[in-house]
Amino acid sequence: MLIAFLSDWGLKSYYVGVCKAVIHSINPEAKVIDLTHEIEPFCVREAMHVLYRAYRDFPPRTVFLTVVDHGVGTERKAIAFSTQSGYFFVGPDNGLFTLVAEEDTILEIRELANADLFYKKQPSTSFHGRDIFAPCAAFLSKGMPLENFGPLLPEITLLDYQKPRLEKGKITGEIAFFDRFGNIETNIPETWLFTQKGLKFYQKLPIYISGEIYTVHYAPTYGSIPQGEILIHGDSSGFLEIAVNQGNARERLKAEAGAKVQIHLPQ
Amino acid sequence: MLIAFLSDWGLKSYYVGVCKAVIHSINPEAKVIDLTHEIEPFCVREAMHVLYRAYRDFPPRTVFLTVVDHGVGTERKAIAFSTQSGYFFVGPDNGLFTLVAEEDTILEIRELANADLFYKKQPSTSFHGRDIFAPCAAFLSKGMPLENFGPLLPEITLLDYQKPRLEKGKITGEIAFFDRFGNIETNIPETWLFTQKGLKFYQKLPIYISGEIYTVHYAPTYGSIPQGEILIHGDSSGFLEIAVNQGNARERLKAEAGAKVQIHLPQ
Amino acid sequence: MLIAFLSDWGLKSYYVGVCKAVIHSINPEAKVIDLTHEIEPFCVREAMHVLYRAYRDFPPRTVFLTVVDHGVGTERKAIAFSTQSGYFFVGPDNGLFTLVAEEDTILEIRELANADLFYKKQPSTSFHGRDIFAPCAAFLSKGMPLENFGPLLPEITLLDYQKPRLEKGKITGEIAFFDRFGNIETNIPETWLFTQKGLKFYQKLPIYISGEIYTVHYAPTYGSIPQGEILIHGDSSGFLEIAVNQGNARERLKAEAGAKVQIHLPQ
Repeated sequence: MLIAFLSDWGLKSYYVGVCKAVIHSINPEAKVIDLTHEIEPFCVREAMHVLYRAYRDFPPRTVFLTVVDHGVGTERKAIAFSTQSGYFFVGPDNGLFTLVAEEDTILEIRELANADLFYKKQPSTSFHGRDIFAPCAAFLSKGMPLENFGPLLPEITLLDYQKPRLEKGKITGEIAFFDRFGNIETNIPETWLFTQKGLKFYQKLPIYISGEIYTVHYAPTYGSIPQGEILIHGDSSGFLEIAVNQGNARERLKAEAGAKVQIHLPQ
Repeated sequence: MLIAFLSDWGLKSYYVGVCKAVIHSINPEAKVIDLTHEIEPFCVREAMHVLYRAYRDFPPRTVFLTVVDHGVGTERKAIAFSTQSGYFFVGPDNGLFTLVAEEDTILEIRELANADLFYKKQPSTSFHGRDIFAPCAAFLSKGMPLENFGPLLPEITLLDYQKPRLEKGKITGEIAFFDRFGNIETNIPETWLFTQKGLKFYQKLPIYISGEIYTVHYAPTYGSIPQGEILIHGDSSGFLEIAVNQGNARERLKAEAGAKVQIHLPQ
Repeated sequence: MLIAFLSDWGLKSYYVGVCKAVIHSINPEAKVIDLTHEIEPFCVREAMHVLYRAYRDFPPRTVFLTVVDHGVGTERKAIAFSTQSGYFFVGPDNGLFTLVAEEDTILEIRELANADLFYKKQPSTSFHGRDIFAPCAAFLSKGMPLENFGPLLPEITLLDYQKPRLEKGKITGEIAFFDRFGNIETNIPETWLFTQKGLKFYQKLPIYISGEIYTVHYAPTYGSIPQGEILIHGDSSGFLEIAVNQGNARERLKAEAGAKVQIHLPQ
């Protein structure tokens, strides 16, 4: 059974390895696939968008172990839930499952409250990834029913975000995250722009980001516009990306995850 | 069956995880080993040299899944081929297999054109790593015959490069790639220099790189020369490396992958 | 059987992948878990602390393959040993096992000297990770008895370090390593500070590091102190961490791994 693992710990950290050891001890048959561990620290929004883009490529019965900003010492609950498509999700109830919940249908939500399933470490330290989330994901991957994990919860926490919207004359969305080069990934499907009638490559478009306006090239590739200028194009995941040819769009546009992006279309 | 996976996507990206999910869905028995995903974006030359250095350490029947600069939307073909040593290679036909093809013997080349084997995603986006290369590698790892993948091709594309050459008085090669510290990795076997008669550690050698001449120390270790000076030595992979003690040789020498390197030997 | 793999090679390097290929060829049943490959180059001290923090979370019979600064061409021995808790360790005898040896009891130490077990590569190059350490770890994971690997050794090399010490009025330890953000990880258990009577959050404490004195906030989170100021708090691994709010403590304090850290407590 697959466990897809996403966190903000980074690959320098030994935390990922330790969680895999705990998973193996509980379910040696589980196969763990790293989705990424390079989510920006505490960036629930990035985790939400990344999980949304990736989860449908995994087979049903996959358990998604997602540990980002679990808020040790706060009231935030640790949860697990199942969906109509047959997936299982394990993580903190901080909104990172918002987009999954909008697309798929949640069947049953449980709080992770059954301490018999937790990893006990002496002397005790509190590393929830290892102690709560990883072992619960491992037991789920073994087929343990959700009811064993804790009390039923009525709903999950949802994160406020700018839903992509295609209207006459404009397209709106938000900054989902940044790639390692500082390119800005939006949550706007690329086809919304590509299928605009009357829009041709190398045309310029006004784009509002965080209240500032920028004139950007609609271009097929980075290299097809002058160095240092801004372009908008489709990345390989099917969403629009804003980039600077040989530059860092994140720094140049002082962009932040969650900022509103609005593309004004030629009339 | 092993699949060795090499790309230029970086480990922040979730693309690697998604490809592994697709592979697992097709062949749950496949074991995927990451060769590296930190090839510089679009650097076919680096991928070519890295693949060449690594592939012989894998057992026969390994499938190499190599996705670097596959040129979406261009005429570049997606291919798979087998070799005399029993390996399989899957990737874009952009020259990255040049060194493998020179050393091993290619038996059969097929274009990846059988859409029945591709991954279908709705709504459709085009991410060739996930949709074409990963599933074809997975089917190959299950033992599917090459003829099922598409039409026979007569040859693969070769990349032009500076073949290492040992002549009287000089050794020539090229910059293969850079490591994470900016050290310059050449394609010149270290033994060519080590076995030079009359050459002793701490001697200085003139080296031409991209038309510039540098005087470098022939030294066993970084620390054995003054800080900020350039040395040439053997790295652990058996090739000559050019480095700056506590510095970044790539920046200092304004070096680019593919640049010619020529070492002038003492007469 | 599990092999936990730790090195200082970085994930750009293909060395990790090649070692896994060698392990697979010897023991296809072995499951390799990466602990981290981002130990700072040659930093035996960091490897020692990381291994110590992680090893007890792995199940008995795990083989730890640890390749950091193995000193090719020096007198340093390659070793393997077993412990009372049922673990196996493979690596260079350079002190990186010091903390494990202090906590667990070493049962049998062998020099890796049986060349029949090594990986042979033609043309020969010397990459000890692939040629000696990885294959020996693979044979150990298959259950091969330690006596097959080479002659018995009486003891392992120990690294000198500042053992954490709790005394009246002060707590002493050392800098264990730095995380990717430049936060300073000490080897001082967080509970030693947390359980101090009369100490409250947001109190300031004098801390000596490498002979300099700093006034730091005892605070629960980064964000709870002014930007640019220094705090001490517990990280998720159970040890004290020194950090700068929105800054890099390593650079700010000119800190080096192994430096003595002394916290002066309120009287």
